[in-house]
Amino acid sequence: MPKISQKAVQMPASPIRKLVPYAEAAKAQGIKIYHLNIGQPDIETPEIMLQAIKNFTPKVVEYSHSAGMESYRRKLSDYYKKHGISISHEQILVTCGGSEAIEIALMTCLNNGDEILIPEPFYANYNGFSCQADVVVKPIKSVIENGFALPPISEFEKMISPKTKAIMICNPGNPTGYLYSKEELEQLKELVLKYDLFLFSDEVYKEFCYDGASYTSVMHLQGADNHVIMLDSISKRYSACGARIGALLTKNKEIMQAALKFAQARLSPPTFGQVGAEAAIDTPQSYFDNVKREYTARRNFVVDALNKIPGVFCPMPKGAFYAIARLPIDDADVFCQWLLESFSYEKQTVMLAPASGFYSTPGSGQNEVRIAYVLNLDDLNKAMICLEKALQAYNSK
Amino acid sequence: MPKISQKAVQMPASPIRKLVPYAEAAKAQGIKIYHLNIGQPDIETPEIMLQAIKNFTPKVVEYSHSAGMESYRRKLSDYYKKHGISISHEQILVTCGGSEAIEIALMTCLNNGDEILIPEPFYANYNGFSCQADVVVKPIKSVIENGFALPPISEFEKMISPKTKAIMICNPGNPTGYLYSKEELEQLKELVLKYDLFLFSDEVYKEFCYDGASYTSVMHLQGADNHVIMLDSISKRYSACGARIGALLTKNKEIMQAALKFAQARLSPPTFGQVGAEAAIDTPQSYFDNVKREYTARRNFVVDALNKIPGVFCPMPKGAFYAIARLPIDDADVFCQWLLESFSYEKQTVMLAPASGFYSTPGSGQNEVRIAYVLNLDDLNKAMICLEKALQAYNSK
Repeated sequence: MPKISQKAVQMPASPIRKLVPYAEAAKAQGIKIYHLNIGQPDIETPEIMLQAIKNFTPKVVEYSHSAGMESYRRKLSDYYKKHGISISHEQILVTCGGSEAIEIALMTCLNNGDEILIPEPFYANYNGFSCQADVVVKPIKSVIENGFALPPISEFEKMISPKTKAIMICNPGNPTGYLYSKEELEQLKELVLKYDLFLFSDEVYKEFCYDGASYTSVMHLQGADNHVIMLDSISKRYSACGARIGALLTKNKEIMQAALKFAQARLSPPTFGQVGAEAAIDTPQSYFDNVKREYTARRNFVVDALNKIPGVFCPMPKGAFYAIARLPIDDADVFCQWLLESFSYEKQTVMLAPASGFYSTPGSGQNEVRIAYVLNLDDLNKAMICLEKALQAYNSK
Repeated sequence: MPKISQKAVQMPASPIRKLVPYAEAAKAQGIKIYHLNIGQPDIETPEIMLQAIKNFTPKVVEYSHSAGMESYRRKLSDYYKKHGISISHEQILVTCGGSEAIEIALMTCLNNGDEILIPEPFYANYNGFSCQADVVVKPIKSVIENGFALPPISEFEKMISPKTKAIMICNPGNPTGYLYSKEELEQLKELVLKYDLFLFSDEVYKEFCYDGASYTSVMHLQGADNHVIMLDSISKRYSACGARIGALLTKNKEIMQAALKFAQARLSPPTFGQVGAEAAIDTPQSYFDNVKREYTARRNFVVDALNKIPGVFCPMPKGAFYAIARLPIDDADVFCQWLLESFSYEKQTVMLAPASGFYSTPGSGQNEVRIAYVLNLDDLNKAMICLEKALQAYNSK
């Protein structure tokens, strides 16, 4: 029997999925699980998007342009303008989800063995995409004490080697919820200019900024057009994860021309998703206002409830719909499994994502968990009660 | 400005797209172009598929399972059973088009620098996917004289090196239309068993076999379960290229487990496409009968018309909807460009795909073109008249 590839062996399994069998076993025992472990929002997809797909009546479901339907890209260009981003439809490549945008960006910009600096904790699948692209992730540690602010630039500089080719950020951050300030982004800009690096920015949570905080995109940075690549997706924006529509934005012509070759090989992004995404751009502002109000209430509730539990610390995130909490435990992997395997309170338990999966430095984040506040307030309340009871029980074992 | 990757530089541009600017210029001059250059069928997508998408009314467009919706995979398992293929839903990974199935298969099975043997001419994007996966394509020449039958196994054996890891075929073939016989497939099986190789088979045209010819899948081969990976897509089957739904099939558990890690990193295949694809499995047989009748008529007409043109030779394909013709010219790249740039007959011309783009041996197929008979008979007739007039004009220049 022929051997599978080294890459296939090394490809990391999703850290969140390790717990799935335990969750299934708990469910089989009739235990209700509050899922705070995944970023699948419960918010409804805008009606205008679903209706457009319903009204789409092609005779033949054809390939679209490999870069995405031109009408969609032109409308996206208008959408970004409203966010203060001036970008033409030719500077936008529509992708199959944000995932493909990241895959194409890595393949286009980094050679095998090149290094990418990423503040950790970071979205776990960056590890998988880097493995696919033979790219080496070099984590730069951010810390819970300051809410996972950008690490000092000197920490990045310490890690820069001749192999360093890019810096990747997620803003607002998954899993941290941290929203980078304009000043932090300017610091990153100076750094990539100084060392001639690419700056990748995953901004799929940009509609989710709270407390009136203003969002600075890498596309707002002046004088770094050839260095900057923005990665986007409609998955969270319109609660349309299954549509699989993302985008790669860059003003660097050479990158866009090369990225298009990868896009042409795979022919086109999904047509139905694009039709919906184009219509979704007209989603009324009231939709986003409601979503933001809802997430703000959830965030405030969860962070407050967490900090009231003895020994728990959770900084207040400014964006996305995640929070990282430090728990009074030794090993969140063990604790999260125990929550599913050995604990229930009134036939209920809670599923959390151990934060260790978001760090690439071994041993980091072992007493932290990521909480996705994607449930309604009532369920969040019950989940927080479960968690408090669980910590009591766990620590008095 | 930082440099793009070597891979991005080496990534081949789609050979078909090179002619697009010339086609656009011709169109701008009011010339009607018969597009025989691309595999975008004009056949209507089954109503049952479109209706299912219309009737799909989720509140939230969620991620599906990373391997594809279980209901769809279970139904696919039934679909394959009708083709004599016994495969469980757990042996099927739903992908974003056949393209992603190929990408994942290559990453899962081949190391950087490993070699894959492919009979040429072959689907040009295999070059791009191999470049992405750092895999080296070693072409094995098939010839127009016998309609591009499987090259002698001795030719494969000559090319096998310690780096050889897999053989890839497309059956029925794009761009050749050749349908491999059971005997040819058995020969390949013996070969992969003898040398412990993987056998990848792209069978996206399997519904398009003519003259009552029976289709043999690699999944029909006995005793090679751990070697065989089938790559499939609904793009051609249901004329639904834009749905972006493909599949990777294998009974090799190790491959499937590894492939799933790549699939999990990119989260899920498109939801709308899957909903449509699941419904499309109930497409009545009469749809396929009609499609086959139509393509058979087109094929017969085109192949006959081509062979009547002085100096043209076109073998009769048994499958897919492509034919390769040898023309009485020196350089089909030049000729195909000339057709768009300098020729018209009654304000019409024809766009063909130079076959050179389907060979990886330099200098091969220079007097050959690929013709996709994806137009109705009336348009095909006009296109063939154009081509005959064009060859006359070209050769009396």
